[in-house]
Amino acid sequence: MIIRDFNELINTDRTVADAKWKSVRMLLADDGMGFSFHITVIEAGSEHTFHYKHHFESVYCISGKGAITDLANGETHQIKPGVMYALDAHDKHTLVAEEQLVLACCFNPPVTGTEVHREDGSYAPASTDA
Amino acid sequence: MIIRDFNELINTDRTVADAKWKSVRMLLADDGMGFSFHITVIEAGSEHTFHYKHHFESVYCISGKGAITDLANGETHQIKPGVMYALDAHDKHTLVAEEQLVLACCFNPPVTGTEVHREDGSYAPASTDA
Repeated sequence: MIIRDFNELINTDRTVADAKWKSVRMLLADDGMGFSFHITVIEAGSEHTFHYKHHFESVYCISGKGAITDLANGETHQIKPGVMYALDAHDKHTLVAEEQLVLACCFNPPVTGTEVHREDGSYAPASTDA
Repeated sequence: MIIRDFNELINTDRTVADAKWKSVRMLLADDGMGFSFHITVIEAGSEHTFHYKHHFESVYCISGKGAITDLANGETHQIKPGVMYALDAHDKHTLVAEEQLVLACCFNPPVTGTEVHREDGSYAPASTDA
């Protein structure tokens, strides 16, 4: 059994961050669960375009307010506590935080922890050689 | 892109419940994500023993207070907002809610939605014929 506390991990190397976004990696590929699980905080007023070409991701809003736009069709959906979006078609999307968003995110395949967002908003595919 | 709202699903057939426990299935196997994602509410004062022999599960505490005991070694860990436990060894465990717990749960393989807890606290293994 693995026990981890977001509040203990937030200032460790399990947190990936830039000025407008941080993500605490609660579970990564090497935990052997077959998915990874992250708590991600998006700062108020920020906008992010992501495109996970090689991963499925679900995102559940724990707190905050924002919107997600599906760039394939231009549809925008409100994000508030209790709303989940799932990128079942590797959907390219833009996420806007009107208030700080706290999100519970699951990735399949699991993120290894070394990925960075590339210029196209994606993570590299899972690899067996790294 | 799938968009679902916990508050709209809670009184539908996507919610599985008994008197002390309810679980809203935000994502199930047929969503094709490779995991399922549930928001589970455990009523205050209740105690539950589960043993997912055929699934990995991670559980993140959104709100509430409780404890989990690993029945393999008797160790008890406090559950509070920000704490996650992950059953990476199909750990048999007892979960106690001192206050109502709201939990974000991921299962691999994904739950199909038809499982019930069996007498031994497990779900049946994933099957291709049902």
